[in-house]
Amino acid sequence: MDKQPDQALVRMLRDDRQHGSSELAQRVLAGLPDIIVHTEASTAAALRARLHDVADQLCAARPSMATITNQMASWKVALESFVGDDPERLRAHAVGATQRLQRQSQRAVEAAARNASRKLGTDQVVMTVSFSSTVRQVYQTLAPRIEAIVSESRPPSEGRQLAAQLSQLGIRTQFITDAQMGRFVSSADAVLVGADTVAADGSIINKCGTYLVALAARDCDVPFYACYESFKTSSLPAESIPIESYRPDEYNAPTLPHVTAHNVYFEITPPYLVSAWITEHGLFTHFPGSHC
Amino acid sequence: MDKQPDQALVRMLRDDRQHGSSELAQRVLAGLPDIIVHTEASTAAALRARLHDVADQLCAARPSMATITNQMASWKVALESFVGDDPERLRAHAVGATQRLQRQSQRAVEAAARNASRKLGTDQVVMTVSFSSTVRQVYQTLAPRIEAIVSESRPPSEGRQLAAQLSQLGIRTQFITDAQMGRFVSSADAVLVGADTVAADGSIINKCGTYLVALAARDCDVPFYACYESFKTSSLPAESIPIESYRPDEYNAPTLPHVTAHNVYFEITPPYLVSAWITEHGLFTHFPGSHC
Repeated sequence: MDKQPDQALVRMLRDDRQHGSSELAQRVLAGLPDIIVHTEASTAAALRARLHDVADQLCAARPSMATITNQMASWKVALESFVGDDPERLRAHAVGATQRLQRQSQRAVEAAARNASRKLGTDQVVMTVSFSSTVRQVYQTLAPRIEAIVSESRPPSEGRQLAAQLSQLGIRTQFITDAQMGRFVSSADAVLVGADTVAADGSIINKCGTYLVALAARDCDVPFYACYESFKTSSLPAESIPIESYRPDEYNAPTLPHVTAHNVYFEITPPYLVSAWITEHGLFTHFPGSHC
Repeated sequence: MDKQPDQALVRMLRDDRQHGSSELAQRVLAGLPDIIVHTEASTAAALRARLHDVADQLCAARPSMATITNQMASWKVALESFVGDDPERLRAHAVGATQRLQRQSQRAVEAAARNASRKLGTDQVVMTVSFSSTVRQVYQTLAPRIEAIVSESRPPSEGRQLAAQLSQLGIRTQFITDAQMGRFVSSADAVLVGADTVAADGSIINKCGTYLVALAARDCDVPFYACYESFKTSSLPAESIPIESYRPDEYNAPTLPHVTAHNVYFEITPPYLVSAWITEHGLFTHFPGSHC
């Protein structure tokens, strides 16, 4: 077991591939007070420097997730705004800042999900990929008057967890392999995905499979919506956003001479495939940027 | 063990989901002489009726595969053309017909693969889905001056077998999950797939995932070729071709209340996504139909 709570939090964030970035960012914010309290420092400046370092490590753990980057940037700004030398007062200030960010993010996710639920309405078949907590909230809001099509999203197959949660909500759900997405998209009334990051041009950075289902949705005249808290919007162009890759043995890829196996997690879905961006600020059929 | 060779052949055909339809059709034709010799009948008419029945059972075993349907139809025509009452002479005639069909099909596959190899040329990165023996022959023809991108094609993940064969041929191969196809298609110079059936309008009926990669290829300006022996061309419209489904436990799908899991094997790739159809008769940028 790790005795350093900051390293444990970094490790949790780095190793959890089941949850989406909003959920993980919430867990990070919930874990920070413990770190703030236990970080040793005799001056406010020393404490601030160490907490900045923690924030930077958290950002580096999941470079494809702008929520983490943006919330840590906001938190660092809050740390900078503290005036005084008393480390204990800075601790209280820093804890307050994480709690404010947590509430702000929770409210944004709820409002984004509410806006998406309104747009979709009841008695629709809604297809998704991966496991976004914002999208799950939409299903929950409309349950049981919504149907779902869920793809496995391999690896680590977090679609299986989503299907289990939808089952508990009493939602009629169709479960498919990722390769069947093209076959099933025409049975859906809409495709709704979350986002790990939304790039400066409105490109959606999300789990691999998202671009494929967006292409199929366009080809079948099914609307494709991305629903996310605006904390996820990055000022970087899509091509500059780091894309996470993991070890191919996560899906037991073959190891053979001349064969290189890949396990790229995320991909870019360009804005021309997005029917609408739905955030806490509303629904936008043209990408509103980060300042809506 | 099954003592009836006809039932064993039907079962082999029904249960083998690793091989493409040309390969399976070859195995069926290779297995028929044993059945012809061992089918009991005292008259030619009785023998013909029993062999017709075997042909019908083989067609029904894999309804998505026009190669089987077309070759069995040709074989039945050959049986009909026999004149006389001697069952032994009909046996010899029937065996001769299977051998002729086998040679014709082998030559067609070789010529189709040769035509595709010529079109691709050397030093290209060629992406594929599933495991087509015709496509494998193209890789083999151009080895080692070709690179491959191979998707898992789950279930039963026959892409793993293709990767193993390409590895043995010394071909540099990139192996990916099905969900990563959209991410990798832009690294390819061309996408080349086989077909289980080509419908009357040129739609390609092939393993699920084919439509998705064809959409991504179009979006990335990468040509998408289908390469097949013309035995695979059906006179039916795409929507009328039976699509095989299997038990979802083949991929260990969840069994949960309200959740229905699917394991549809094949899907339709419409002709507007096909850059060229390549058969033993040449390369066609407009679908040539079945009479080229």
